[in-house]
Amino acid sequence: MSTYKDKDQDPRLHGIKTKIRVVPNFPKFGIMFQDITTLLLDPKAFKDTIDLFVERYKGKNISVVAGIEARGFIFGPPIALAIGAKFVPLRKPKKLPGKVISQEYILEYGRDCLEMHVGAVEAGERVLVVDDLIATGGTLCAAMDLLERVGAEVVECACVIELPELKGRERLNGKPLYVLVEYFEI
Amino acid sequence: MSTYKDKDQDPRLHGIKTKIRVVPNFPKFGIMFQDITTLLLDPKAFKDTIDLFVERYKGKNISVVAGIEARGFIFGPPIALAIGAKFVPLRKPKKLPGKVISQEYILEYGRDCLEMHVGAVEAGERVLVVDDLIATGGTLCAAMDLLERVGAEVVECACVIELPELKGRERLNGKPLYVLVEYFEI
Repeated sequence: MSTYKDKDQDPRLHGIKTKIRVVPNFPKFGIMFQDITTLLLDPKAFKDTIDLFVERYKGKNISVVAGIEARGFIFGPPIALAIGAKFVPLRKPKKLPGKVISQEYILEYGRDCLEMHVGAVEAGERVLVVDDLIATGGTLCAAMDLLERVGAEVVECACVIELPELKGRERLNGKPLYVLVEYFEI
Repeated sequence: MSTYKDKDQDPRLHGIKTKIRVVPNFPKFGIMFQDITTLLLDPKAFKDTIDLFVERYKGKNISVVAGIEARGFIFGPPIALAIGAKFVPLRKPKKLPGKVISQEYILEYGRDCLEMHVGAVEAGERVLVVDDLIATGGTLCAAMDLLERVGAEVVECACVIELPELKGRERLNGKPLYVLVEYFEI
């Protein structure tokens, strides 16, 4: 058994990469959609994905895992359960039944919005933000804005996939971003 | 330490019940919305919820956990990971990038639709369907229809909460339904 100090050399990452499917021209022409549903069909690769995040975040005094609707709901809860943190869903408008705070953000075409329940996260809590993918970073920025508005500390953003060519990492205002897989189109 | 043979006597259920919040008049007047986000804020109660499902389904030769968008995505993946099954998301229209099969269903006002990726579930596979709540049962019926159309066997439907007064259980065509908590409005 070898050990790998460089995370990129972890042998589990290769298995994870091979299970992500690229669907061309979804949801519109020209977009190479990164489909994580094929990763979820492989119990070992899905477990490896969660384990890699848990190994990174356990013992880091994180009390909240915030997951972004909808695919962040798939990866966030298993991490929260494993590290003993709360899970807080960040949802599209009008989905959360309680009192919410909202954060609009700009997409390539038009606007979108994320909402969080008031009281779900308290000032001073250390939060991990989870989504399946970072593209331009707009959604993650809105998520961080929500959390920082209530006085929480975003420790890191964690995604399965990064599209480095879209430079989302540069929009995160210096917040650390951890990803398992990078996908380059060119 | 006592042991409880009757599942309803399991002491973890009381903790789970107390963490579910009822929000009156959401999403519209007269509906007492069962809010599971407060359950997710209690790491022990959320873990107990998952553990109760895992204890029931481990060793039952279930190869697929199918979760219904969006709250079924929160409860399904931890169960799938723990029992070594695939996780298959059943989504609203136009969310899944690959080839899908669709199932329309009737709501109190209007129609809705669930989609599943072709090839995600194979004929003969034993499937657990997971959602947070059963009300009239329409969504769970549509989920079962999708799975049975591809020749899979739905072993059971599992929900955190049942609203027995809406008689959803009677619409499931004899399929077993397992719930942790019943909520009676009257």
